Amino acid sequence: MSEKANIGVIGMAVMGSNLARNLAHHGNTVAVFNRSYGRTETLMKDHGTEGKFIPAKTLEEFVASLSVPRTAIIMVKAGAPTEATINALADVMEPGDIIVDGGNTYFKDTIRREKAIRARGLHYVGCGVSGGEEGALNGPSMMPGGTAESWKTLGPILESIAAKAPEDGAPCVTHIGENGAGHFVKMVHNGIEYADMQLISESYDLLRRGLGLTPSEIGDIFAEWNKGELDSYLVEITEEVLHHTDAKTGKPFLDIVVDHAGMKGTGTWTVQTALSLAVPVTGIAEAVFARGLSSRSEQRDEAASKTLPGVTPHIDVADREAFIEDVRKALYASKIIAYAQGFDEITEGAKEYDWDINLGDVARIWRAGCIIRAKFLNRISDAYDSGKMTSSLVFDPYFTKSLGDAQDSWRRVVSAAALGGVPIPAFSSSLSYYDGLRSDRLPAALVQGQRDFFGAHTYGRVDEPGVFHTLWGEEGRKEIKEDDSAAYTA
Amino acid sequence: MSEKANIGVIGMAVMGSNLARNLAHHGNTVAVFNRSYGRTETLMKDHGTEGKFIPAKTLEEFVASLSVPRTAIIMVKAGAPTEATINALADVMEPGDIIVDGGNTYFKDTIRREKAIRARGLHYVGCGVSGGEEGALNGPSMMPGGTAESWKTLGPILESIAAKAPEDGAPCVTHIGENGAGHFVKMVHNGIEYADMQLISESYDLLRRGLGLTPSEIGDIFAEWNKGELDSYLVEITEEVLHHTDAKTGKPFLDIVVDHAGMKGTGTWTVQTALSLAVPVTGIAEAVFARGLSSRSEQRDEAASKTLPGVTPHIDVADREAFIEDVRKALYASKIIAYAQGFDEITEGAKEYDWDINLGDVARIWRAGCIIRAKFLNRISDAYDSGKMTSSLVFDPYFTKSLGDAQDSWRRVVSAAALGGVPIPAFSSSLSYYDGLRSDRLPAALVQGQRDFFGAHTYGRVDEPGVFHTLWGEEGRKEIKEDDSAAYTA
Repeated sequence: MSEKANIGVIGMAVMGSNLARNLAHHGNTVAVFNRSYGRTETLMKDHGTEGKFIPAKTLEEFVASLSVPRTAIIMVKAGAPTEATINALADVMEPGDIIVDGGNTYFKDTIRREKAIRARGLHYVGCGVSGGEEGALNGPSMMPGGTAESWKTLGPILESIAAKAPEDGAPCVTHIGENGAGHFVKMVHNGIEYADMQLISESYDLLRRGLGLTPSEIGDIFAEWNKGELDSYLVEITEEVLHHTDAKTGKPFLDIVVDHAGMKGTGTWTVQTALSLAVPVTGIAEAVFARGLSSRSEQRDEAASKTLPGVTPHIDVADREAFIEDVRKALYASKIIAYAQGFDEITEGAKEYDWDINLGDVARIWRAGCIIRAKFLNRISDAYDSGKMTSSLVFDPYFTKSLGDAQDSWRRVVSAAALGGVPIPAFSSSLSYYDGLRSDRLPAALVQGQRDFFGAHTYGRVDEPGVFHTLWGEEGRKEIKEDDSAAYTA
Repeated sequence: MSEKANIGVIGMAVMGSNLARNLAHHGNTVAVFNRSYGRTETLMKDHGTEGKFIPAKTLEEFVASLSVPRTAIIMVKAGAPTEATINALADVMEPGDIIVDGGNTYFKDTIRREKAIRARGLHYVGCGVSGGEEGALNGPSMMPGGTAESWKTLGPILESIAAKAPEDGAPCVTHIGENGAGHFVKMVHNGIEYADMQLISESYDLLRRGLGLTPSEIGDIFAEWNKGELDSYLVEITEEVLHHTDAKTGKPFLDIVVDHAGMKGTGTWTVQTALSLAVPVTGIAEAVFARGLSSRSEQRDEAASKTLPGVTPHIDVADREAFIEDVRKALYASKIIAYAQGFDEITEGAKEYDWDINLGDVARIWRAGCIIRAKFLNRISDAYDSGKMTSSLVFDPYFTKSLGDAQDSWRRVVSAAALGGVPIPAFSSSLSYYDGLRSDRLPAALVQGQRDFFGAHTYGRVDEPGVFHTLWGEEGRKEIKEDDSAAYTA
């Protein structure tokens, strides 16, 4: 074997083989390996002439074909298969080599594995890869974690295959931070994707069941929306899905699809992690729950057979065009909230796990290649780059103004949906979050009063520092000042 | 030492000493132990004449004072202190003895500990105890897990001190199920408590900032509500908190309380667990997030300093009395949803962890002693006892009718709050959940279309079994039928 490969890919399913081809297209020499050799043969037969590949029949052969430091990207199923591959690879690699996990691995697993692999002298990089099959082939957005040293070798390779932002041609990849930072950010990316998809679906439902428009008519509306501030990949593909006609029945494609939304775990992780970090991610949570509800067949079948009381879904409006514009603005406002909440989660995650994450860069590398790519992300990177960003995206002047412009529309949409029986959990949750955030006084004071009453959980006073408890059972209800927090109560 | 104790309590903070006194008041001979003897002395000095106590200075002395099978309830802080106490106790106990953890322990820790302790021949019972200090003293609601055999000894003791339901005098305790079942059910109990408190707080906010009523006027309204279908402990104490005047300032108590709601973890666990079980618990989640939002000081301070655009909170209604009645009905409807979701979580948890939980019994033991005690729980136990209960509480004829009766009010309240800028995350989320559940077709079909487009995640067809994928990039968009689920994509 004369020439060595500067990068290797393990796992020749769709994502892995597309990534390998992308690497070869950009001048890399790519070692490829799959547990069963058949898939590697298929790649070589169908695409072997697209660039320089070195096919390997065994893991040892694969590793021997790599130049030093050996760099290998694992693209196999998350969980046990990934774990097994990492361990096998570490056994045959040498100190200084770099193992990259390109799957959707839970970031805590990545933190654990990185520590173990680093102890053996190797680099371990958990790398989020977004963009699906098409992105893997033509340019994904990538979110690598791991050591800064590994980035020196890996960076140029990933930059060669990353999507390029249309605005400035910058590659959509950056070193996110140490150990699990990349997978953490990819997880939140997916959570935001859930919220965005749910908001788009609620918009569709308002126009479909609410106004009685056809999928094709709604597709035209999305096409229009895609020309403005909502310009994004998800809005674009929504238009395509809405305009698609089922060949078998001649019906709108959407009407022949079973309405049970699937999920693979990253949305769930995003919300569970946000809960641990005490960050409200209401839009993402409602999106995950909406998918859950849609798939609860037993309850939905019973609901269908028994007819729960309520209005037939409809939207009462005098001016349909005006309402469609209201929905567009409500979608944009709710989307700002969902992204603000997602960035809050990254901020708190970085504090908790001691990562130095540049949020402007995160927005920048999401501008192309990934599923949530959108013009709007330029506004987010501008906000973080302004040096004036403080505690939430909503306080950036551009977004504050957008929320102001959308205000009345947003409220009319939530109001009309509640009266008309159209479920809009993510729209209404985002509006309530916004109204909560801008409240001088929240009814959380009552929650504190209740907690002190039944559990002696104590409270703070607005006019004096310290921790207080009222003796609720006593005459006169004496207030006492405590020197530490509440006694043990359940 | 002549007489032996039939029960022991470890940990003489408020909860432990109150529980020990309760035990003594009901004819039990109670061994008491605390790491520092001072607290035990205080108990003996202040309450030693209330019944038969055997104070112990060391754990060995404590164990020696117990009759066989030795039964000890641990009431110390959750986490490391509880773990240490369990291990120390197991070391000095003998096979057949019973260790009870009465704290708010995470149910997975209880499953793990129960397995370890059972392997040593002892019984380990994770027991949820609700009712706060007052409940511990005068009758808590208790949710023990562990083996059926341990219940033979422990049952009569716990029944002696449990709260008695006002309707039939039945003790509010039952053997919930094996290992962690008790702590699981207590966790969900607390989650429901979060939702209930949030819904009450949103009602208060609608009347306070919405209608401009004073806390005292709202207290009168809650007093009235407590006479009807909302009759419950939380509504009762809300009235008391609302009517309370701060002695120092003469202002309504609520206005001097810092509006940052605290939490101790059980609400967070409830939502995280529900997410793992794919059960939508939207009301509980919004309640946890609302507490989180209230405590994000940096963002709230910035919001206060910058003024986010939006209406000044208000409710526009012609008939204030009618709106107050609307809020009452909306509260009841949303509460039904929160409880239905909580019971769904118990149902799915029982399936996942192989527990045989009687849901009618769960509702029954929550009728007294615990924080969420309410007349309404009789309706839930009736529903489960009817033998006709199927997949959700909302399908029980009584609750279906209640939701029907509340329908229009519920919608008017959510609509008015959205227009008027009052945050009502739990109200609106519950309504959206209900509207989602009763939808024949959900926009989840669009989510499936999007997922298939960008990630080849496949979909089902309404007119044919099987798994399908559309080749979106191709001419004619050919649909293919797959024999297994999607290829690996990220």
